[in-house]
Amino acid sequence: MDASTLIRKKRDGHPLTRQEICDFVSNYTCGEIPDYQASALLMAIFFRGLDLEETANLTEAIMNSGRVLDLSGLSGSKVDKHSTGGVGDKTSLIVAPAAAAGGLVVPMVSGRGLGHTGGTLDKLDSIPGFNTRLALADFRRVLGACGMGLIGQTDDLAPADRKLYALRDVTATVESLGLICSSILGKKLAEGIDALVLDVKTGSGAFMKKMEDSRALARRLVDIATACGKRALALITDMNQPLGRAAGNALEVIECLEALKGRGPADLMEVSRQLTAHMFVLGGLEATLAGGRERFNTVVSKGKALEKFAQCIAEQGGDPRIAEEYSRFQAAQHAESVVAPRDGCVARLEAEGLGRAAVTLGAGRERLDSMIDPAVGLTLEKKVGDRVEAGERICVVHYNNPARLPRALALIRSAISITNEPVDLPPLVRETITSEA
Amino acid sequence: MDASTLIRKKRDGHPLTRQEICDFVSNYTCGEIPDYQASALLMAIFFRGLDLEETANLTEAIMNSGRVLDLSGLSGSKVDKHSTGGVGDKTSLIVAPAAAAGGLVVPMVSGRGLGHTGGTLDKLDSIPGFNTRLALADFRRVLGACGMGLIGQTDDLAPADRKLYALRDVTATVESLGLICSSILGKKLAEGIDALVLDVKTGSGAFMKKMEDSRALARRLVDIATACGKRALALITDMNQPLGRAAGNALEVIECLEALKGRGPADLMEVSRQLTAHMFVLGGLEATLAGGRERFNTVVSKGKALEKFAQCIAEQGGDPRIAEEYSRFQAAQHAESVVAPRDGCVARLEAEGLGRAAVTLGAGRERLDSMIDPAVGLTLEKKVGDRVEAGERICVVHYNNPARLPRALALIRSAISITNEPVDLPPLVRETITSEA
Repeated sequence: MDASTLIRKKRDGHPLTRQEICDFVSNYTCGEIPDYQASALLMAIFFRGLDLEETANLTEAIMNSGRVLDLSGLSGSKVDKHSTGGVGDKTSLIVAPAAAAGGLVVPMVSGRGLGHTGGTLDKLDSIPGFNTRLALADFRRVLGACGMGLIGQTDDLAPADRKLYALRDVTATVESLGLICSSILGKKLAEGIDALVLDVKTGSGAFMKKMEDSRALARRLVDIATACGKRALALITDMNQPLGRAAGNALEVIECLEALKGRGPADLMEVSRQLTAHMFVLGGLEATLAGGRERFNTVVSKGKALEKFAQCIAEQGGDPRIAEEYSRFQAAQHAESVVAPRDGCVARLEAEGLGRAAVTLGAGRERLDSMIDPAVGLTLEKKVGDRVEAGERICVVHYNNPARLPRALALIRSAISITNEPVDLPPLVRETITSEA
Repeated sequence: MDASTLIRKKRDGHPLTRQEICDFVSNYTCGEIPDYQASALLMAIFFRGLDLEETANLTEAIMNSGRVLDLSGLSGSKVDKHSTGGVGDKTSLIVAPAAAAGGLVVPMVSGRGLGHTGGTLDKLDSIPGFNTRLALADFRRVLGACGMGLIGQTDDLAPADRKLYALRDVTATVESLGLICSSILGKKLAEGIDALVLDVKTGSGAFMKKMEDSRALARRLVDIATACGKRALALITDMNQPLGRAAGNALEVIECLEALKGRGPADLMEVSRQLTAHMFVLGGLEATLAGGRERFNTVVSKGKALEKFAQCIAEQGGDPRIAEEYSRFQAAQHAESVVAPRDGCVARLEAEGLGRAAVTLGAGRERLDSMIDPAVGLTLEKKVGDRVEAGERICVVHYNNPARLPRALALIRSAISITNEPVDLPPLVRETITSEA
C-alpha cells in the first residue's frame, strides 16, 4: 500500500493493520516515506485517534525500528520505571539503585529536561565524570556488573521515535494520546525489559494537569504495555508542588544521596518506596506490596542502595566519592532567600511556576541550545501544609547569574500562597492503575 | 506567527486571519515553510474546513503568489469560462471564439486531461503547430490581436497552486471544498478577468457525481469569486453521458469546428450557447440572457466565431487551414463499430466508462508520463434517448494500437444500456447558481 492510500485510510476513520503500521514506520525511518507524508498521517491520527491495537502495533514498530536490547544473558528480572515528568521529580536516582540492590536488573534509558520539568540525564551530568552516552555494548557490561545502568537514548534505540517526535514537535501533532503512548513505550520496550512501573504525574507541574487526562494516559500506557506482552502498572502521583525539597540538578542528586541514606524528605521517600515496591512485585521478587516496601526499606537502611548507586557511578566513569563528599559537586556562588510575607499555613507551592523559576536560573533549557548550569536551583524549606511565621524562610534560591535572579524571584513569589486555614494535603499516590488483562 | 502555531490554530478549529493565510502561502511558495508543515496544515484544513472568508483569502493569496495579468490596456470586458471537467467536454473551443467574436476578451488558461476526463490543452495539441506554451507577454499580444488566447499554466501564474496541488495529491488532502475552490479560482483570477462563468459538471463522468456535491461546489465557487470582487455565475450541467458525440482530441476539435459552423450536436450547442450567453451578460454586453443567446447565434451563423478561432490558431502558430480541411488533422488508422445488441432505446452511455475507454486507446494519460495519441477516440452515433435496432451502430472506435482495442471495447460495451421503455432525458442545464451578494 502506498503512503497516500494509508493516509487516506486513516483520514477516513478506518483502523490501520499491523502490517500497514510496520511498513509505515520502517519506510519512514529509512527515509523512503518523506516527512510531508508522515506529517499528514500524524495529523490524520490527531483527528481520528488510534485504538488500543493500533497503538500497541505502533509501539512495537517503534521498538523494532532499531536494536532491542537482549538482556537474556543476565540473571534476574529486568524491570524499569518511567515517569511522565515533573518538578523535583528525581525518583529515578533512588528507585534504580534500590531496585538493583534488591535483586532486579534496571536498564534505565532516560531523557533530558523538557519545558519546566527536569530530566534524569541533566541531573546525572552534574556528577563529575559520569558518562550517560554509553554504546549499547558498554551499557550491557555495566548492567552485568552492577544490575543497573543510566544512559540516554542512543542512535540505534528506537530511531523511529526520535524522527517522529522531532516531526510532531513542529507540526502541532504532539498532543495525541496514541502517539504519546507509543513514543514513551516504544523506547522503553527497546530496553529489553520484562516489566515496567509507570509514574504518571498529575497537577500543575505535570504535562497532564487534570486527573481525568492523567488517568486516561495511565490506563492506555498500562493496556499497551500489557498488549505488548509486558507486566505493567501505573501510579498516578501528585505534581501540584515539587516532589522533595530540591529543584536543580546537583541539588537534586544530593537530595537523592540523602534519600538513599534514609534521610530524604517524606514525600520523596514515600513515592520512591511505592514505585520500587511495585517493581519488586512485578519482577517476581515479592508477592505483596507490603513485602516490596519492606525490601526497599531494608536495602536503604543497610546502605545497599547507596552502595549500588556509587558502584554504578564508578562503572560509568563518574567520581563515586560524591556519595559522601557533596563539596565535589559544583555549587552556586550566591543564595537568596524567599520568606513568608505573613503568618499562616503554606497553601500552594505551584510546581510549574517553581519549575520555570529553576529553568530561568539555568537549571533547564529555555531554548534547545541553552547551556545547563548544574549548580543552580531552588531548595524549599517549607512544603504545602507547613506553618510559617512572617519573615520565615520558605525557599532558598541558588544562583550564579544575578541578571536572572529578579525574574526567578517573581516566578517563585507568585507560585507561593499563604492561608489562614489549615491545609488538607492531597494523597501523594492518587490512584494505582493495574492491568485488566 | 510561526508555522507550527498556525497549524495548531487551525487544528483546534480557529479561523485563520487574512495575514496568516498570506504569510503561509508566500512563505511556502518561496520554500521558507517546508512541505511537512504545509501538509500537516492541509490535513488540519481537511478536518476543520475553511470558511468563506478564509477561502477567499486563500484564493487571493494563491493568485498573488505569482504574476497577475494586467489586461487594463485592452478594451472590452475580460470574461472567462471554467469547467470542472468531463468526457467530451469541449465547450471551451466554442465558447471562447464565440465570446471573443461577440466583443469580450477571453484570456483562457487551461489544463490537461486528468483521470478519465479530457483537457483543453491536449485537444489544442492536435492542431498542427498550435503553441499553448506562450510567455505572458506573447499571450497578451495574442489577446490584443484577436480578443482570445488559449494557453497552459505558466511558471509565473499562481505558482503556489502548482506547489500546493502536487503536495495535496500525495498526502490525501485533495478532497476539501475550500482547497478545491481556492485552487480553481486562484489560477483563474490571476488571468486578470472581470467576470467568470463556471460550468460545474454533475453525474457519472464528473468529479462530483452527486447533485448535492456539485451544488455545494458551485455555490462556494460563486461566493468566493464574488468575495474576491469578480462577477460570477455557475451552471450545473449534466455529465452522465458525454457532451456531444466525440471523445478524443482531434475528433473533438473537429466537432467544435462543426459547432462553430452551426452544425454541432444539439446538447453541445445548447451548453455552449448558455455558457456564452451568461458571459455576455456578466461582461455587460447584453442585459438579458435571451439577448446573450441571440448574440451567440448571430456570431455563429455569420461565421464570426469560426473566423475568430482561425485567427487565434494563426496567432498562436497553428495552421488555420484546419478550420476547413479536416484531413490536416491526424486520423486513426483503424475503426471498429460497437452495435446495439437488440432493439430498444438507449438508456445509458455512462460517461466515466466511455472516458476510460478513450484513455485506454491513448486519448488521455494512464500514467503521468503517458504519451497522448491525438487521433484516437470515440464517436457516438446514438445518444441517450435515441431509438436503435439490433445491429445498428452506436459508437465508432478510432484506434491505432490493436492491442488496446479489446479493453476499450469491453469498457464501452459495459457503459451502454438498451431498454424497452422510452427514456426521459435529464435537463442539460440542471441549475443556475448566481451570486447572492
